[in-house]
Amino acid sequence: MRESQPNATIVGAGLVGSLLALYLAKKGNKVTIFERRPDMRKADIGGGRSINLALSDRGWRALEGIGIGDDIRKVGIPMYKRVMHDVKGNLTSQPYGKEGQGIYSVSRGGLNMKLMDLAEENPNINLHFNQQLTNLDLKTNTLEFHNPQTNEDTKVQAERVFGADGAFSAVRSVLQKTERFEYSQSYLEYGYKELTIAPGENGTWQLEKNALHIWPRGQYMMIALPNLDGSFTCTMFFPYEGEHSFSALKTEADVTKFFSEVFPDALPLMPTLLEDYFGNPTGTLVTVKCFPWTYQDKVALIGDAAHAVVPFYGQGMNAGFEDCTVLNQLMEAHDNDWETIFKAFETSRKPNADAIADLAVLNFVEMRDKVADPQFLLQKKIEGKINAMYPEQWIPLYTMVTFSPDIPYAKAMKNGQKQEKIMKKLMKYIKTEADFEKPEVQEILQQKMAEKFSV
Amino acid sequence: MRESQPNATIVGAGLVGSLLALYLAKKGNKVTIFERRPDMRKADIGGGRSINLALSDRGWRALEGIGIGDDIRKVGIPMYKRVMHDVKGNLTSQPYGKEGQGIYSVSRGGLNMKLMDLAEENPNINLHFNQQLTNLDLKTNTLEFHNPQTNEDTKVQAERVFGADGAFSAVRSVLQKTERFEYSQSYLEYGYKELTIAPGENGTWQLEKNALHIWPRGQYMMIALPNLDGSFTCTMFFPYEGEHSFSALKTEADVTKFFSEVFPDALPLMPTLLEDYFGNPTGTLVTVKCFPWTYQDKVALIGDAAHAVVPFYGQGMNAGFEDCTVLNQLMEAHDNDWETIFKAFETSRKPNADAIADLAVLNFVEMRDKVADPQFLLQKKIEGKINAMYPEQWIPLYTMVTFSPDIPYAKAMKNGQKQEKIMKKLMKYIKTEADFEKPEVQEILQQKMAEKFSV
Repeated sequence: MRESQPNATIVGAGLVGSLLALYLAKKGNKVTIFERRPDMRKADIGGGRSINLALSDRGWRALEGIGIGDDIRKVGIPMYKRVMHDVKGNLTSQPYGKEGQGIYSVSRGGLNMKLMDLAEENPNINLHFNQQLTNLDLKTNTLEFHNPQTNEDTKVQAERVFGADGAFSAVRSVLQKTERFEYSQSYLEYGYKELTIAPGENGTWQLEKNALHIWPRGQYMMIALPNLDGSFTCTMFFPYEGEHSFSALKTEADVTKFFSEVFPDALPLMPTLLEDYFGNPTGTLVTVKCFPWTYQDKVALIGDAAHAVVPFYGQGMNAGFEDCTVLNQLMEAHDNDWETIFKAFETSRKPNADAIADLAVLNFVEMRDKVADPQFLLQKKIEGKINAMYPEQWIPLYTMVTFSPDIPYAKAMKNGQKQEKIMKKLMKYIKTEADFEKPEVQEILQQKMAEKFSV
Repeated sequence: MRESQPNATIVGAGLVGSLLALYLAKKGNKVTIFERRPDMRKADIGGGRSINLALSDRGWRALEGIGIGDDIRKVGIPMYKRVMHDVKGNLTSQPYGKEGQGIYSVSRGGLNMKLMDLAEENPNINLHFNQQLTNLDLKTNTLEFHNPQTNEDTKVQAERVFGADGAFSAVRSVLQKTERFEYSQSYLEYGYKELTIAPGENGTWQLEKNALHIWPRGQYMMIALPNLDGSFTCTMFFPYEGEHSFSALKTEADVTKFFSEVFPDALPLMPTLLEDYFGNPTGTLVTVKCFPWTYQDKVALIGDAAHAVVPFYGQGMNAGFEDCTVLNQLMEAHDNDWETIFKAFETSRKPNADAIADLAVLNFVEMRDKVADPQFLLQKKIEGKINAMYPEQWIPLYTMVTFSPDIPYAKAMKNGQKQEKIMKKLMKYIKTEADFEKPEVQEILQQKMAEKFSV
């Protein structure tokens, strides 16, 4: 038995870092967190990150693991469907799952502060703010931090370091220089801009509250998620260059004209459009992949630091939270054998992180383009019918990713690809919902289902 | 007209940095080079880089551009063919090009020192050694260097910075943090080990001198290039893990047994095998891709810093030298308009750098596996015949890459892919060289050649 309490140093007090601290403390670790930014609970620090996030079953599972699922659920807004807005303001919709299945719009800041509060209450967790990592010596596992407010430098000798410092992780940039470290950072040629739909009278919602709204426009799109105060946070995903692009909208008149033409039903609900558009930064859309995620039993990357994804599957935070769930399972299975825990962690998580990264890029095409296509919506309905016939064997990809707390992303992707192949065959015979009942369609389906499960 | 002489700061005095300095000075720039390592002309610094290199037409062109082609040719050894050694020591061979076409084995160190000498003689070039780049401020274009020998720090305010600091470029690592910088580093699961075949009596060569020797063994291989002193430098490319791998050869007995089984004709020529094997570092095989290569009119990456490739096409140095040729053309076309020069440089070079990176990885399979396949050698002979029939329209891929001083790599790759498709069709009808004359083969060839050039 070890003599002293094991200690862990976490770089980053974001969503994943704060949650990880709670899990590590629960397992008996003495945890110290160093966060680069000031304490968000004391100062509005903005920082250009999205204001609300979609929390789904993998995220819930991780929050429930530390007993705060119900608390967070109270301040989340369930969204049961996508509502598509066409250029004339006509609406169509598509449920996300079965009756009652929804994803939750939660405030990034609110959730982060809640997790920080819980961490601070915990006697085994210490939080430090304004601490920029300036060096990490892998030989001695010594971290150096600089506090730009006090100009103080701090050295910390850590037993174990967790890099939970996001897509532009400073911990990862140290690992990047180690031998045979695989690394890629890749950007979409799109940026995003956060905009606002104002609350209605008395804090009511001016669009349907329990939905994620999409204005799909082929090469670009806007989405909106509800907030508790009646507002919606909109995100416009838009090319940097080209005919319709950030570089083409130069003046206030350009922006107003563009919105009146392509988002006519949203424009009247956006009184702060111009200040939002010209005042908010344009966010980038990066995918980061790397390997290994760990260094001996000393350092591990987790969350966006290990696998930053684009936001189009709403799984970035959920995937990071799932990292915590998996790490927790491994801590239970391999009591303080950190070399084993780290190896198993990166080996099991890497294929799943790669899968959700690729799915997220693909889903951008679906959201900005396909959801406006009647044929696509028909296919989704047919898929719902197949799922009803084969509830265990055929689960729509979106459902596996979003409403399963534990089907691995890689398995979901693989099953989804098989199903998509079958759907393509079936849709050749299907022009209306009723066509699904045609004998030839049923025959192909049964044959394909038999094949699917024989392989 | 500008008042003062433009100045350029080059980070890295390797092959590309030194050559670039000569080109920049020729165009009227005041050039300062900072090199991380000590002066290789005064101290043997090793460093694990390969001892000899294959210089081919793109490289010659760049050297001739500063008038030193003939000097270098005198100390290079032409290699006119590949000689394959099978496990029984039987030899087969394949010419690299037509009669008299060869690639040159040159000493990396010798060439580098020659370029440094030329740079030092030039009144417009200053060389500084032991200067490690510790910071580059992109706002002010200020570089900071640390000299570990004297412990001095130096600040340099540069008009223009060229990062010629290799695959693990410090200049690039600064650019990597700029917005939307595409970056990937990727390793083969193979390493390499440099070994030696000793000179024979009186400095003679124990294998055929004017050839590149290959011991292709399917999943791994050894190659050997001749040196002027009668020795050959061998490089064994070998998996890190697995049945036949670095991790499997642990003891001296393991190594000797393995070489006696798989490289039996080489073993007796390698008296220093064991000290080489256990004394030399195991090199990694990295491909680096990134974009952009330039930052405003201030910074440009060149050579391996912009596009490190694996060595299997023998084009790493040649591609870096070709960067200098292209940059020189652009300097001539856009007199001191560096923003235009840099944009044109990265735009024209990037697709070619990507192409040679991909070709180099593919060529590993060819060298370690296919060159041992009689069917492959037959195909190469048939391709020679086609080339003779259509000398302008059908040039073998290897020839386009290696013996053309100016067909862009990307164009070579694309043409090569078209030709490979046609070859596959033809080879279905060809079992011997004579089959090439069969009417059906000639008919298909003529038809495909017509198609090839109609597209």
